[in-house]
Amino acid sequence: MSETKKSEADRLPRAVGLLGGGIIGGGWAARFLLNGVDVRLYGPSLGAAERVQKMLVNARRTYRRLTRVPLPAEGKLTVVKSVEDAVDGVELVQESAPERLELKQQLLAKASQAAGREILICSSTSGFLPSLLQAGMNHPERFLVAHPFNPVYLVPLAELCAGRRTAPEASARAAEIYRSVGMHPVLVRKEIDGFITSRVQEAAWREAMWLVHDDVATAQEVDDAVRYSFGLRRPIMGPLQTYRMAVNEASGRRAMERMGPELKKPWTKLTEVPELADAYLDKLGEQLDAQMEAENLSFSELERKRDDCLVAMLRGLSSEEHGAGSTLARWERRLRDRVPQSSSEPGPLRTPMLEIPSSWLGYNGHVTGRCDLQLCGYAKENVLNHIGIDDEYMATSGRYFSAETHLSHIRELYAGDRVEVITQVLGADDKRLHIFHAVMREGDDGPAATGEQVLVHITAGSGRSGPVCGQVRERVVELARLHAQLPLPDRARPGNGRRSLDQLRY
Amino acid sequence: MSETKKSEADRLPRAVGLLGGGIIGGGWAARFLLNGVDVRLYGPSLGAAERVQKMLVNARRTYRRLTRVPLPAEGKLTVVKSVEDAVDGVELVQESAPERLELKQQLLAKASQAAGREILICSSTSGFLPSLLQAGMNHPERFLVAHPFNPVYLVPLAELCAGRRTAPEASARAAEIYRSVGMHPVLVRKEIDGFITSRVQEAAWREAMWLVHDDVATAQEVDDAVRYSFGLRRPIMGPLQTYRMAVNEASGRRAMERMGPELKKPWTKLTEVPELADAYLDKLGEQLDAQMEAENLSFSELERKRDDCLVAMLRGLSSEEHGAGSTLARWERRLRDRVPQSSSEPGPLRTPMLEIPSSWLGYNGHVTGRCDLQLCGYAKENVLNHIGIDDEYMATSGRYFSAETHLSHIRELYAGDRVEVITQVLGADDKRLHIFHAVMREGDDGPAATGEQVLVHITAGSGRSGPVCGQVRERVVELARLHAQLPLPDRARPGNGRRSLDQLRY
Repeated sequence: MSETKKSEADRLPRAVGLLGGGIIGGGWAARFLLNGVDVRLYGPSLGAAERVQKMLVNARRTYRRLTRVPLPAEGKLTVVKSVEDAVDGVELVQESAPERLELKQQLLAKASQAAGREILICSSTSGFLPSLLQAGMNHPERFLVAHPFNPVYLVPLAELCAGRRTAPEASARAAEIYRSVGMHPVLVRKEIDGFITSRVQEAAWREAMWLVHDDVATAQEVDDAVRYSFGLRRPIMGPLQTYRMAVNEASGRRAMERMGPELKKPWTKLTEVPELADAYLDKLGEQLDAQMEAENLSFSELERKRDDCLVAMLRGLSSEEHGAGSTLARWERRLRDRVPQSSSEPGPLRTPMLEIPSSWLGYNGHVTGRCDLQLCGYAKENVLNHIGIDDEYMATSGRYFSAETHLSHIRELYAGDRVEVITQVLGADDKRLHIFHAVMREGDDGPAATGEQVLVHITAGSGRSGPVCGQVRERVVELARLHAQLPLPDRARPGNGRRSLDQLRY
Repeated sequence: MSETKKSEADRLPRAVGLLGGGIIGGGWAARFLLNGVDVRLYGPSLGAAERVQKMLVNARRTYRRLTRVPLPAEGKLTVVKSVEDAVDGVELVQESAPERLELKQQLLAKASQAAGREILICSSTSGFLPSLLQAGMNHPERFLVAHPFNPVYLVPLAELCAGRRTAPEASARAAEIYRSVGMHPVLVRKEIDGFITSRVQEAAWREAMWLVHDDVATAQEVDDAVRYSFGLRRPIMGPLQTYRMAVNEASGRRAMERMGPELKKPWTKLTEVPELADAYLDKLGEQLDAQMEAENLSFSELERKRDDCLVAMLRGLSSEEHGAGSTLARWERRLRDRVPQSSSEPGPLRTPMLEIPSSWLGYNGHVTGRCDLQLCGYAKENVLNHIGIDDEYMATSGRYFSAETHLSHIRELYAGDRVEVITQVLGADDKRLHIFHAVMREGDDGPAATGEQVLVHITAGSGRSGPVCGQVRERVVELARLHAQLPLPDRARPGNGRRSLDQLRY
């Protein structure tokens, strides 16, 4: 909600240099590449390049489900052999080495010697003080912490923390860059170990560790209790607003005064941490293994499941424009702005190739008829984008309304099928646009479904049909002219049930 | 995932008695009533009855968006004037008084004197030890804690905790009852103040309170940092599995050994709690008010927003059958089982009235054409339910596939519109079922949209069309016979583009 009101400055970098090719480095690579940014990756550990490729495959699959806006052409991935090579020609260097202070300090110092002073350098550390990290750097004023979350290509927070020697412009530039690749930057106001997120997350973890230690519950039970209860609200409300909402008081101060006694209750273990003694490690390890076994998924299947759930929730939150869903919505608007407008290629229009997500399955495991309409809907959006219907046109001039839709479901589609939709304009006049879609599954000869639609132009503010205008009109005319030269698709031939525009009563 | 493997015994109670009509008591009332359970409510505080009615309105609206399975007839709400009256004839008494130990003890003692020994008594306390609560009760063996979460009608966890004198059968019976109204019971293994959830939640809250106290971040920043990062994963993974997943190790024990050093880091304030001194209360209060202002929503609008987001996420998690989404899926299966099968009323079939959710809005605030298909899809499911297509039939005999769908979009629908779909069978034979839907908005004369569909019966296992069989066949024949006597809907008349079944090539 509040996000749209804030400054939304963003600036897509040309190229970034990544130091470290583990889960975090690979996640950064995927996020930048899929947003069209070139990546130079220095991953000293064995198999880093392969790992990154594997993560990229996961991320591509996930992004196809995350958004229906066409993604930009992927950035170029260059795997390099040295820190010096990684920082060459980039705008941002992102260090994601293992969490060992000296290792990070050495790497950052080296990068700062190789990179010109105008190149921003950020660390992905989840807890080290930026002042410690920048101690040995050249031009430490361009350094800060930018802490991401696993999976980096999907979770939107970039937690920024400046050190004693960081220039404020560096934090501002970093925020712009992370915003441009769909992230939500939050700047920590004071340096502190663990920043905001690791501290809050660790506090909860420690308490959970005690509960298992003291046999109050098993690992599975603790996790279930959290995710079926307040954990379900966490993407919507943070811990402070949650307690604020527990008391319906007009003033925040009064609400907290009333919540005060809660803080006197003996409700958390406030000692250090349970000792990881052998017996406890055995018990905890067993329970964690049992939990994984109950899921009956391998580690990487579990990662996919997590990603699929995140996508489903992000899409849900996006439909409400709330929390991380508004970050997604903003990113999609940006992506749409970057889609090249119009072209005078004479061929039919094509949607990007899309993988049928399992969330489109009906109750009984089959993809339902809705799926075909959804696909034709994407194809329609594609046509509307192509002719230049944007927010401004809709606010000032009008929009197209689907008056009639005729779907023929020919072959069943399954989750995981890769499909594109090919669209041809069959006719157009002042008010009407007659289009025909063929849903093509990769490798098939004929369409899996076809859709015929009559769109009617509605004049803005009137709620009634009226003529299309301005540049959009020109584009419609041009598109209809180009498509009139194409052969009619089989299923769109008269006699196959198709009526011409003149036979339709709109 | 794992849930479906566990025992799923559930038993819907006839009636429950609720002590307390606040946010929690009202939430319980809504959950039980909407699941068809009668409620006797004793709410001593002023305006309790009105508050509960208001919550019920919210809950009804929310449930219409949560599921498309028809809900049972609502239970009867009786507001009573005494504890004795509240426990009369019920199977479960649920106490949800304010969190004051003596008040709860008195109320529970009184209820236990009035209620026969076979009546289960549970407390909604979020932290008091059940042994303390049951101290003065008659037949304390039928008492336990069942801790719910706000909003009670939507968040699935029922955190159960037995006291020293609780009989194991009481916990088992309670789990069955909560399961029957769509909840996920977790039984805490040892009595402990705050159980699992309040302890973990409070640990996070205290840390958050320190961050604001020490000016590391504002309330808004702390909350944003949490909900845009690990908070987004919380409905998917609890705190223990999260740290487990941070290390890709085959053994849980090895993973924890590797995570061990994390616990040595100075990442949480391990002292008591920040003192709620005047200056801190002023600052915190101001920040909480600013946070509410930034949302630009009133308290009750914020509650609705929270509910809408919860619904969107629960539906998302349900499509992945994961976490709280599997609880929702299980509840829907139970609801569907309870829908009365078939009837020989001669009228057309009707879906339950449904409110268009804002999540059906397209990118630009208009409800898209998908909405009409979605509605026709519900109506189709309604027909299939009516003729007895269930999981067993689909596994052994076959199912119907929508071969052709023709939608006419006549009037635009908006979020909040209440609609039902009226369906008439136009024809049926061995393999084909020809149906016509009219989407009717409450108060309109004509349909907002119509949908004509040809369904083809596919024989199980073959992937090819084949004859419908058994009882389903009889029901199809009977339904077609009854509907043949109804007048043809306007838009389904020949000449309006409709073709008879014989003209269709299936």
